[in-house]
Amino acid sequence: MGRIRFLTAGESHGPQLTVIIEGIPAGLALAAEEIDRWLARRQQGYGRGDRMAIERDRVEMVAGVRGGRTLGSPIALIIRNRDWPHWQEIMAPGPEARLEERVVTRPRPGHADLAGGMKYRHGDLRNVLERASARETAARVAAGAVARRLLEAVGVEILGHVRQIGPVRLAREPDLARIREAASSPVYCADAETEKAMMEAIDRAREAGDSLGGVFEIFALNVPPGLGSYAHWDRRLDGRLAQALMSIPGIKGVESGLGFAAAASPGSAVHDALHWDAGRG
Amino acid sequence: MGRIRFLTAGESHGPQLTVIIEGIPAGLALAAEEIDRWLARRQQGYGRGDRMAIERDRVEMVAGVRGGRTLGSPIALIIRNRDWPHWQEIMAPGPEARLEERVVTRPRPGHADLAGGMKYRHGDLRNVLERASARETAARVAAGAVARRLLEAVGVEILGHVRQIGPVRLAREPDLARIREAASSPVYCADAETEKAMMEAIDRAREAGDSLGGVFEIFALNVPPGLGSYAHWDRRLDGRLAQALMSIPGIKGVESGLGFAAAASPGSAVHDALHWDAGRG
Amino acid sequence: MGRIRFLTAGESHGPQLTVIIEGIPAGLALAAEEIDRWLARRQQGYGRGDRMAIERDRVEMVAGVRGGRTLGSPIALIIRNRDWPHWQEIMAPGPEARLEERVVTRPRPGHADLAGGMKYRHGDLRNVLERASARETAARVAAGAVARRLLEAVGVEILGHVRQIGPVRLAREPDLARIREAASSPVYCADAETEKAMMEAIDRAREAGDSLGGVFEIFALNVPPGLGSYAHWDRRLDGRLAQALMSIPGIKGVESGLGFAAAASPGSAVHDALHWDAGRG
Amino acid sequence: MGRIRFLTAGESHGPQLTVIIEGIPAGLALAAEEIDRWLARRQQGYGRGDRMAIERDRVEMVAGVRGGRTLGSPIALIIRNRDWPHWQEIMAPGPEARLEERVVTRPRPGHADLAGGMKYRHGDLRNVLERASARETAARVAAGAVARRLLEAVGVEILGHVRQIGPVRLAREPDLARIREAASSPVYCADAETEKAMMEAIDRAREAGDSLGGVFEIFALNVPPGLGSYAHWDRRLDGRLAQALMSIPGIKGVESGLGFAAAASPGSAVHDALHWDAGRG
Repeated sequence: MGRIRFLTAGESHGPQLTVIIEGIPAGLALAAEEIDRWLARRQQGYGRGDRMAIERDRVEMVAGVRGGRTLGSPIALIIRNRDWPHWQEIMAPGPEARLEERVVTRPRPGHADLAGGMKYRHGDLRNVLERASARETAARVAAGAVARRLLEAVGVEILGHVRQIGPVRLAREPDLARIREAASSPVYCADAETEKAMMEAIDRAREAGDSLGGVFEIFALNVPPGLGSYAHWDRRLDGRLAQALMSIPGIKGVESGLGFAAAASPGSAVHDALHWDAGRG
Repeated sequence: MGRIRFLTAGESHGPQLTVIIEGIPAGLALAAEEIDRWLARRQQGYGRGDRMAIERDRVEMVAGVRGGRTLGSPIALIIRNRDWPHWQEIMAPGPEARLEERVVTRPRPGHADLAGGMKYRHGDLRNVLERASARETAARVAAGAVARRLLEAVGVEILGHVRQIGPVRLAREPDLARIREAASSPVYCADAETEKAMMEAIDRAREAGDSLGGVFEIFALNVPPGLGSYAHWDRRLDGRLAQALMSIPGIKGVESGLGFAAAASPGSAVHDALHWDAGRG
Repeated sequence: MGRIRFLTAGESHGPQLTVIIEGIPAGLALAAEEIDRWLARRQQGYGRGDRMAIERDRVEMVAGVRGGRTLGSPIALIIRNRDWPHWQEIMAPGPEARLEERVVTRPRPGHADLAGGMKYRHGDLRNVLERASARETAARVAAGAVARRLLEAVGVEILGHVRQIGPVRLAREPDLARIREAASSPVYCADAETEKAMMEAIDRAREAGDSLGGVFEIFALNVPPGLGSYAHWDRRLDGRLAQALMSIPGIKGVESGLGFAAAASPGSAVHDALHWDAGRG
Repeated sequence: MGRIRFLTAGESHGPQLTVIIEGIPAGLALAAEEIDRWLARRQQGYGRGDRMAIERDRVEMVAGVRGGRTLGSPIALIIRNRDWPHWQEIMAPGPEARLEERVVTRPRPGHADLAGGMKYRHGDLRNVLERASARETAARVAAGAVARRLLEAVGVEILGHVRQIGPVRLAREPDLARIREAASSPVYCADAETEKAMMEAIDRAREAGDSLGGVFEIFALNVPPGLGSYAHWDRRLDGRLAQALMSIPGIKGVESGLGFAAAASPGSAVHDALHWDAGRG
């Protein structure tokens, strides 16, 4: 097997998102329904707005998969935009597009609008925000679902849960069994009491017309030793994971292992923690 | 502008070919009709079989282009397979695919069938030949049409003509004006007499149930000096062009400049030829 | 200009570290002394051990630079190991190496020893730790010094300072003028009072045979808008910076902008902070 | 094992050539003497000039190899320029370089001089030709010797011989046993009679102050089926080999299998030839 690469394409209000994944080995069982489950999970979430409700993403596998198994050739995935009929005239690829409508000229702080408009010389910032949009992550979720199938096939389990929403943090450290159950929590929280407080915090923010950030944690279990390599900086796994995470719009921090907490601890305590960690794993 | 990369996906009898091109600058005029002209040219050709007649490829631009101009975001192109209804049941991505039909178990010499079947452990060699197919070059033609638009925008002209078909070679060296006209020849030949002999050779081969190879020549005019670089082997333009050409199924040789003829000439003659070449350019 | 790539090589006790940087434009003023200043800064630091004192790194530019300016061809940099005579017999590339000496068989927690030994089937973990060593960062500092020269040439200023060492955090937020002066602090701290507390904390840890972590902050000023791109996930600047930072051994967390603090704040406050940030810049 | 990448650096009259190879697996037996044999073979050759006699290249392995085996970490190779003392003042990296000496202002046809001078804005074309030099291929030979060791370790045998020098072509098709013996011919020719004619042709050209081109052929035997892939154009082995070969200065043509001869043959004959080829392999 060589390395895996993928490209995504698609504007937020364009006809579809497209992903091509090259390098997935042949013979891997892969079903559209499985990818759809992750797309659905991306769209769920306590307090989500209406746009998400409209979308109801479904993937179509248009290359690289036959009879439920990968062929070894590039996999192409499509997620159609169900709202396309409302945008078709505005976003059309041809010269008939109504470019004078839905024009955006005021860049939003904290977004790619201003820098993107300057880089690509777009007077209409819609041409930036259509791509620099959270919608693009649906394509990455689809690609990630394929990667996840590959990891599952070699025994790796990936778990995630939410540790913090706004000011509300996990009241106690959950065990793996509870973390596995977090998938059924409306806020992906592994602790019932904290979950309730998180939902209340979201309710309050929404009533105030505001929104909240948060912190999530991901575990990969049964990872074969030796993934990545110390041999060259750009093969180090933690660096590559940090890039993948930090490239998600809105992500402002990434920690690995003890994270920033390690800074405040003496080296001896970090050493002990690592022993404990190895013991737990 | 950074470097340009692209991925293609799609099986010969699958629902569609898909291309994503990443790195094309924003603001480039790009029309589907223009890409279609190149797709049509790929399908033309004196002596072509019926499969080609069926296809009549049309591109759809589903990302990266709005109102006739590129956005700077990845461009996604789709070429649908008009024959898909006849293959849908056999090539379906899901478990309902009728894998027991149209099975191929006999590898063809000179094709990827045997090596591909071994590499990806495909018992049904259809799973190889669906991707290791000349059909895939339609996706590359579409990507190439986009690249060509970019080159045209900076003044580069690319010309091609056919020098040889089977045993018939160009009777005389055509000038650039004639080479520009070769596009309207049924065999892309820049010389009327040779064209006639080429067509007769094709007729004879077809009557005998045989086929013919050939040699074509490509010119790029007004190329800005300094494309590529001597600074590192993998940035050399002739090497990259050789890879692109040799990766086309059926291509068995690539020459640059004087090509293999230079081997038989003394260095002094090569030197003179280069002077002449610089003078002609 | 194309993209820049670089490879580093060298074991901690090998004869030298080697770096090749490909893609730096021609005509850039570059002096070994300038790289040496960054190598020296890497080796300084309040509380550093003796190994560092021995090294006194100096760079030699053995390719790509002539007469004080880059040539456009790959740049090769060498940092010799002054301790090599003591290690020559043990680390020799040839069969005469005394492999039975200085053998390491006990993997250290939190290091690459165990995974590296398994991945590359090294019985002697010295073969891992010689490369998975902080020494390798000297090669990256040399490469970074070249990159910094390129950034300076286009007006970018890069500043860094230390915000926390062990439990001691910056007592007050310093302004840019003070941050520029942090380079002359023994602990790179921009606040005199905090600096004193940091040095005391280091003294105490050292007396207890312990060590301390910390947090540093980097600013890049006058960055041209449009570096990186929202167009594809792997071109996003914050993701690439996160990879580069997280790949440094010992780095356990990376934040961009408001970082993890944004998680606890309502979206409206983040919005205000971004306005303020734009105003400050 | 991941993919292998390498960078080379070094000017023709600089202090040394440097190569870093990243991705070679650990545990591979590798000796400097073995690489030296290939460097020597590169420098041999009937009719070679004096410059080659001076060089007598020797490799030093300064990273990635210990006790005669690769470590899995990047391999750094150095080939010193024995002529460096004569060039040190002219080619020095620092400002003391005597840039006013050995200046080249007249670009040679067929070389990178003119395009390189324009691309990198070099008034002194020495700054181009020092890198765009056949000398650089010594670094590639060293890297190739390492790759060859890896291939040998999996049973692949690589053979080469010269088919043509100037107007003299192989009088008869040699068998593999003779091709294996070509390594001991002064002109790497597998046929004694042709060898004699080739040497005479070289003698005549040299007397006339001229030089000759040629054609060589490479075989790779026992290649595991499935190297490369039809799945994506840039993974096809013949394309990658074509790039590697065409990037060697002076190479003007690359053929694979039947090469250009296939153009003149009917498809049925090509088909038969492939059967015969498979039978011979």
